[in-house]
Amino acid sequence: MTESTTTVLVTGAAGFIGSHIVRGILEDKRYEDFKIIAFDDLSGGFKDNLPVHERVSFIHGDVSNVDDVAGLFSNQQIRYVFHLAAYAAEGLSHFIRRFNYRNNLIGSVNLINESVNAGVQHFVFTSSIAVYGKGQVPMTEATNPHPEDPYGIAKLAVELDLKSAADMFGLKSTVFRPHNVYGEYQNIGDRYRNVVGIFINRMMQGLPLPVFGDGSQQRAFTYIADIITPMLSAPFIKEAEGEVFNIGASAPVSVRELANVVAQEFKGKPDIEFLPARNEVHLAYSDHSKADRVFGKSEETPLVIGIRQMADWAKQAGDRTSATFENIEIDQGLPPSWRSHHGK
Amino acid sequence: MTESTTTVLVTGAAGFIGSHIVRGILEDKRYEDFKIIAFDDLSGGFKDNLPVHERVSFIHGDVSNVDDVAGLFSNQQIRYVFHLAAYAAEGLSHFIRRFNYRNNLIGSVNLINESVNAGVQHFVFTSSIAVYGKGQVPMTEATNPHPEDPYGIAKLAVELDLKSAADMFGLKSTVFRPHNVYGEYQNIGDRYRNVVGIFINRMMQGLPLPVFGDGSQQRAFTYIADIITPMLSAPFIKEAEGEVFNIGASAPVSVRELANVVAQEFKGKPDIEFLPARNEVHLAYSDHSKADRVFGKSEETPLVIGIRQMADWAKQAGDRTSATFENIEIDQGLPPSWRSHHGK
Repeated sequence: MTESTTTVLVTGAAGFIGSHIVRGILEDKRYEDFKIIAFDDLSGGFKDNLPVHERVSFIHGDVSNVDDVAGLFSNQQIRYVFHLAAYAAEGLSHFIRRFNYRNNLIGSVNLINESVNAGVQHFVFTSSIAVYGKGQVPMTEATNPHPEDPYGIAKLAVELDLKSAADMFGLKSTVFRPHNVYGEYQNIGDRYRNVVGIFINRMMQGLPLPVFGDGSQQRAFTYIADIITPMLSAPFIKEAEGEVFNIGASAPVSVRELANVVAQEFKGKPDIEFLPARNEVHLAYSDHSKADRVFGKSEETPLVIGIRQMADWAKQAGDRTSATFENIEIDQGLPPSWRSHHGK
Repeated sequence: MTESTTTVLVTGAAGFIGSHIVRGILEDKRYEDFKIIAFDDLSGGFKDNLPVHERVSFIHGDVSNVDDVAGLFSNQQIRYVFHLAAYAAEGLSHFIRRFNYRNNLIGSVNLINESVNAGVQHFVFTSSIAVYGKGQVPMTEATNPHPEDPYGIAKLAVELDLKSAADMFGLKSTVFRPHNVYGEYQNIGDRYRNVVGIFINRMMQGLPLPVFGDGSQQRAFTYIADIITPMLSAPFIKEAEGEVFNIGASAPVSVRELANVVAQEFKGKPDIEFLPARNEVHLAYSDHSKADRVFGKSEETPLVIGIRQMADWAKQAGDRTSATFENIEIDQGLPPSWRSHHGK
């Protein structure tokens, strides 16, 4: 093994989870000899989410562009891949089906192709609880996946493609299904996703908190730091090879309760704007005993603590204006709050 | 309903199953007022597979090209879609992952988008038994899909996307999973797929019949005419809406036995060229009781009869030279017989 192969590729590195993976690698003794290629198209991430460090090289590019990905691998000897790049607006994915599959599936397949051809030693993929669809809770990895939106369908297709690439070409991989992750460096200016970020951003702007339906839908909100350790361990633990793991917090909390916790950080009561219910899973939380068994019991940061850390960061970083997604493919039933000001 | 909406779109219409669908529509009283748009990129099909008829208009285009598909729908009021266009070389799909997903998934999603926006009344999709992967036989529609190659993964993703589009936008659809279909108008010059066509082509060329492994792998070979009737009925039977159906023959036959049946049509014994086994399902046949219940018991043309009809047609049509697929993405483990003469 030559020194030149001690490179880790992190895609979506300037995004929320990606930037935490980069920081995690820098602090992890198992990776102390590794340099990091931080790859991102900056469509949802920010370059200043990344630490400035001699071991980190930023490369601007798009995983769904085959030339960008081929260029990456022809210039680097990459040993591990952490693939985080994705357009992760689950609810919006109904309305941007083609864009979703191109980014989230074709982009992943470009990386899988190159990883097989380059002999990458381990490929860590971030899937989602969205692969389960509506079903029994808590969801376990043995639950039969039945994704109900294009975002979840693309994630499942990548999981299956990785399994196929392992059987056919011996590409080793581990799949993580985190859920409802929040924390510092999250893009709080994205109007389409991540209720925690939206709530914090709205509080900072003095605006009401938008809630779809009555806000009784429950999610187990997960503090970012709690999922990074198992992800970084995947290439080093034999039992993780070829396996799928749920990771994240265990305690479900309603969206209305979340609104109260967020508002407390801003010393206020939440002013809630109720919007028509959308087509979403009512109760989503998952079982993590498999991950606990393989990686050890993970920390579970209490919601009030995690929200405080994120709110403190957000107050420093400042509020952001929502970006709009301009290329809606299907307009029928698009929630008004998601509509571009420029019309379709 | 104006007369202009009595149009049926058939994609992959110049291909094998597609051209039979077009002929079937022309002969079916339920469609007597309909004109047919026969859409094909001619990558695997042949224009002369299509009947010359005043009700049939051929349009050259590619489903994976968003402008081609948008153009189709902006110029026509389409009531029903029969979506057959696909690159169907299952075994090769391991080596052309990106191409596979672009053609078979993104192409389908382009059609789904336009069908939602145009208010199409019924979308008939041809999936495949490949969605099942290895599993218990006979496979029933209740069997948990677990595709093991990119071709099957793309087919499953489209099935799930159609389900999602039905729930979200009310797009009505029916999915068929035919298997091992053979018959007249099949592309016997395609080196990558359809063992029946390859065997007939090789017999006509006086060449040995290539068999992967020992030829004991079994398939239930299905004569084309037996699957067309249920497919054409789907838009008119309420019980077919939103459902998935296995269709095809029930009796499994080994590849070696098939070689004997084909050779008999050419008054010879098969000269078999044994090739290394490839990563494929050993025994694949499916249960069709659900389709029989909804569409009525389908005909099952005996193998010797079906092979005779196909061989008679092939003798008239003449042998064809194999086309090669030039853009292999992963070379590792590619069977030598699939390798391009021009190198990678």
